[in-house]
Amino acid sequence: MHEVTGWAAHAPGAAPAPWTFERRDPGERDVVVRVTYCGLCATDLHALRHGDPASFPLVAGHEMVGEVTAVGSGVTGFAAGDAVAVGNIIGSCGVCRECRAGRENDCREFPTLTYGGVDRVSGGITQGGFSREIIVDEHFVHASPTGLDPAGVAPLLCAGITTWSPLRRFGAGPGTTVGVVGVGGLGHLALRFAHALGAETVAFTSSASKADAARTLGADDVVLSSDAKEMDAQHRRCDIVLDTTGASLDLAPYLAALAVDGTFVLAGIPTRPLSIDPMSLVVGEKRIAGTGSGGVPDTRQMLAFCGEHGITADVEVVPVERLGEAMDRLARGDVRFRFSVDLG
Amino acid sequence: MHEVTGWAAHAPGAAPAPWTFERRDPGERDVVVRVTYCGLCATDLHALRHGDPASFPLVAGHEMVGEVTAVGSGVTGFAAGDAVAVGNIIGSCGVCRECRAGRENDCREFPTLTYGGVDRVSGGITQGGFSREIIVDEHFVHASPTGLDPAGVAPLLCAGITTWSPLRRFGAGPGTTVGVVGVGGLGHLALRFAHALGAETVAFTSSASKADAARTLGADDVVLSSDAKEMDAQHRRCDIVLDTTGASLDLAPYLAALAVDGTFVLAGIPTRPLSIDPMSLVVGEKRIAGTGSGGVPDTRQMLAFCGEHGITADVEVVPVERLGEAMDRLARGDVRFRFSVDLG
Repeated sequence: MHEVTGWAAHAPGAAPAPWTFERRDPGERDVVVRVTYCGLCATDLHALRHGDPASFPLVAGHEMVGEVTAVGSGVTGFAAGDAVAVGNIIGSCGVCRECRAGRENDCREFPTLTYGGVDRVSGGITQGGFSREIIVDEHFVHASPTGLDPAGVAPLLCAGITTWSPLRRFGAGPGTTVGVVGVGGLGHLALRFAHALGAETVAFTSSASKADAARTLGADDVVLSSDAKEMDAQHRRCDIVLDTTGASLDLAPYLAALAVDGTFVLAGIPTRPLSIDPMSLVVGEKRIAGTGSGGVPDTRQMLAFCGEHGITADVEVVPVERLGEAMDRLARGDVRFRFSVDLG
Repeated sequence: MHEVTGWAAHAPGAAPAPWTFERRDPGERDVVVRVTYCGLCATDLHALRHGDPASFPLVAGHEMVGEVTAVGSGVTGFAAGDAVAVGNIIGSCGVCRECRAGRENDCREFPTLTYGGVDRVSGGITQGGFSREIIVDEHFVHASPTGLDPAGVAPLLCAGITTWSPLRRFGAGPGTTVGVVGVGGLGHLALRFAHALGAETVAFTSSASKADAARTLGADDVVLSSDAKEMDAQHRRCDIVLDTTGASLDLAPYLAALAVDGTFVLAGIPTRPLSIDPMSLVVGEKRIAGTGSGGVPDTRQMLAFCGEHGITADVEVVPVERLGEAMDRLARGDVRFRFSVDLG
């Protein structure tokens, strides 16, 4: 086995602390990655604080960049020294309809999550990116774009792909209007993507203080979501509304803001059931869609796009020794827009 | 004004009785249609029994076929003697984005409903198809396909277009699997359409006694929706599930039956709000969509398709004098699959 140092919570809610654990020995198709930065996502916070006690000690983190230090004999796409990235899934069955279509995140056997999943080779519990090293099948390793700040690339692997996939799937581009609800970790990347894809971009925020930031990120217009009159004025404006808040919003004003055939996309996951007036979908033939992260082809396309357009996340870099403090700050929304944890 | 005999309810819940009323005089672009058959839809029942008292006396009916008896001087598409059809909308603004795109049913000024709407010329309340004659702008008059039983063509104008539009919009065709929930007025046409479009077709019914009928209508498979085990076996099977019931169903098993990127379409309108577990949309990246009737181009395409494929509704013909009795029977589900009211 391959000994690694990570920062683990030893029980739900415990502060992350250094922990030495074992990863599988690198196999033929595996890439050994020295992790340099790993983004901190709300999902990490939830897993570390409220996860299944059976999966502890738990090393979270699923937005990594790093450097290849070794590759298995069958690896063809990477070599030692390469700058690479790893996201929230590191395995899938590879043979189902979804995997064959490059939708590994929708694998029928459920994809192997980067942490808290079951390692398809060793059978152990997978451990995430708040660690010095990770060992990953090359299919789930991606070239990191050159010329970008690696600390800001890391969050693209979850916050980025989660917003990129639905924007592409629902056709964001010239001639379309994209609304982004929430200007945070996901939302700020969604605004950058939608703008760079050529869409007219509208930021919906409950916080007037974010208006300037939203414009800088690419919003052509900013709507204060608490202002009913402003919301009414968005009637049938947006082809896509991407909700990045994960909150249990009143959907009615956002559905009203959709154009005919428009789609409201849940890029976050509200904890309460959605309650929807059927007429708000029938009139104007509107849609509500869920979205996950993204498959391998989408992830690589997104990273290439970011390289071409100079897109990264806005991050505050914190050393891994201060991971617990960063978690506390994230819990109260005190970050602009993402923490990137330095493991270097 | 133009005097016409219709069968009106004089107050909500009153039995329909003969009533002489006035329609606008035919204008330059108008077509005068002698109505021969008009389908009876659940919407008619609702309007006649529970409609706004202010719009009574009310002549319902919005699924008509008939014969042109006169045309205005500016009419180019129709001449006296033509077999034609008229559906649930007979006007729209004509200039908004939706109207210009042939989505008159989504007109920003709201389309003029065939009955209970405001006549765009006279300003009066529109009256529907349970009448001897109707006067309609030629844009909303459609050629009725030749070689089909006109009594069975009438329901295509609402039950047909309401199911045809979403099947086309969401790509029903070879290589796709379409589930149809409910084998009734709408559902039996949806099965015929999906099958004729080349999709694998699955009927979901709560009534085992409808299995044979569903297969005859084109279902490749029939699933008893009350059988949890049968429902579980449909996991990720359907690209589209078209709910024609209008009931407040538990959506969870139907969302589970959707393939990745699949769409659950509300072709009926449940009276209660939908309650949806967000995860049931997120896992598999699924969608819920509303749908209305259809615009003019879709309606004409649907009628042409029916002509080519010999598709009509299965109807029980009743003379207009027995409209009240047919309403009572429809209210208790005693019809297979649609009443077509004979005004001939």
